[in-house]
Amino acid sequence: MEKNVRVIEVKRSIFENNDKDAERLRAELKEKKVFLLNLMSSPGSGKTTTLLALGKALEGRLKMGVMEADIDSAVDAETMIKAGIKSIQIHTGGMCHLDADMTRQGLYEFGMEDAELIVLENVGNLVCPAEFDTGAVKNMTILSVPEGDDKPLKYPLMYEKCDLLVINKTDVLPYFDFQKERVEKYAKMRNPHIDILYISAKTGEGIEELADWIADQVKIWTM
Amino acid sequence: MEKNVRVIEVKRSIFENNDKDAERLRAELKEKKVFLLNLMSSPGSGKTTTLLALGKALEGRLKMGVMEADIDSAVDAETMIKAGIKSIQIHTGGMCHLDADMTRQGLYEFGMEDAELIVLENVGNLVCPAEFDTGAVKNMTILSVPEGDDKPLKYPLMYEKCDLLVINKTDVLPYFDFQKERVEKYAKMRNPHIDILYISAKTGEGIEELADWIADQVKIWTM
Repeated sequence: MEKNVRVIEVKRSIFENNDKDAERLRAELKEKKVFLLNLMSSPGSGKTTTLLALGKALEGRLKMGVMEADIDSAVDAETMIKAGIKSIQIHTGGMCHLDADMTRQGLYEFGMEDAELIVLENVGNLVCPAEFDTGAVKNMTILSVPEGDDKPLKYPLMYEKCDLLVINKTDVLPYFDFQKERVEKYAKMRNPHIDILYISAKTGEGIEELADWIADQVKIWTM
Repeated sequence: MEKNVRVIEVKRSIFENNDKDAERLRAELKEKKVFLLNLMSSPGSGKTTTLLALGKALEGRLKMGVMEADIDSAVDAETMIKAGIKSIQIHTGGMCHLDADMTRQGLYEFGMEDAELIVLENVGNLVCPAEFDTGAVKNMTILSVPEGDDKPLKYPLMYEKCDLLVINKTDVLPYFDFQKERVEKYAKMRNPHIDILYISAKTGEGIEELADWIADQVKIWTM
């Protein structure tokens, strides 16, 4: 089942100061003109489906690759590769997050020569990944409609740290008590500068706008 | 807003050996004939809504209380109190999980004299809470249909540690590609002894069966 997927086991960082190490990694990315996007969310919010839709939307515009981080399994990297998106699977050895050095190990294995945009799909978790700077240029979080509009109240750091909040699964809005005004108010309370986009990765609604947001950021970073 | 809610800030444990400390706490619970249920899940899977439905279903059968653990906010404890369920809010000081001593601090503040069943609603997180024995008698996890049926593949420890898997939001099964056979196969792969129940906390479907499961466990523990 996992024959065609490269799975790498990353080790916990030896660096005491992760923030400094993340800055070093960002400088290296800048020099190599590679944009690293750190994608975080709860389990099951639709990170992988969103990346599949993005892969299509960015085809011919940007060379995109994906590093899938999970505690176990390689199902996400398999899905990416089947869809023609360059991908590796990172196993965290039980760890609930990635730090900058673990991300670097992934990037070196992935290869940065031929990429413009690399997305790190972080471990599904609204708590720990937000505590560790991965060295990414921008942080994005997905909140899906079924999870509820109160999440920014309960997981403050995730929303403080993110540049972009993507609300996914808008196609099921009629079946859930999810209010856009409420989630926007709570998210801006945590971070007044956060951008907010609405998508349905399933139907494709909003994917073009999301692709544009990312392409703009990549352009600014690599010019 | 949080006027009527008792919020306590628990401190990280001073005990090096959490497993031993959890055993001590369980022995104390046994002596006091209090059943502690540790409820874990992703953010937004419906822990709070399920507890509201359970509160109703167990009314007159069991004295139930709820300890709500969150990094921030007291919205869940407020909701419980409004519904007439005895509740306190535990703040973890940014921590992604509760250990046995943090749970004990919560229990002492809550008061165990007048309770038969106390539910600890753990921090919404599929990774870290599974790593720490809270001292609970049983562990239960909720997986909601929109999260997808592959979660036991990606978060092995959560399913290994749980006695009961509750699949919630069955009312939206028609709108998601979620296969019961698949989730059952994956969950049993992690833990052959896991019990699995299907509910919709919103419509009430399956809540009686869940209440019976819990009431049976409490009976065995306290007799």
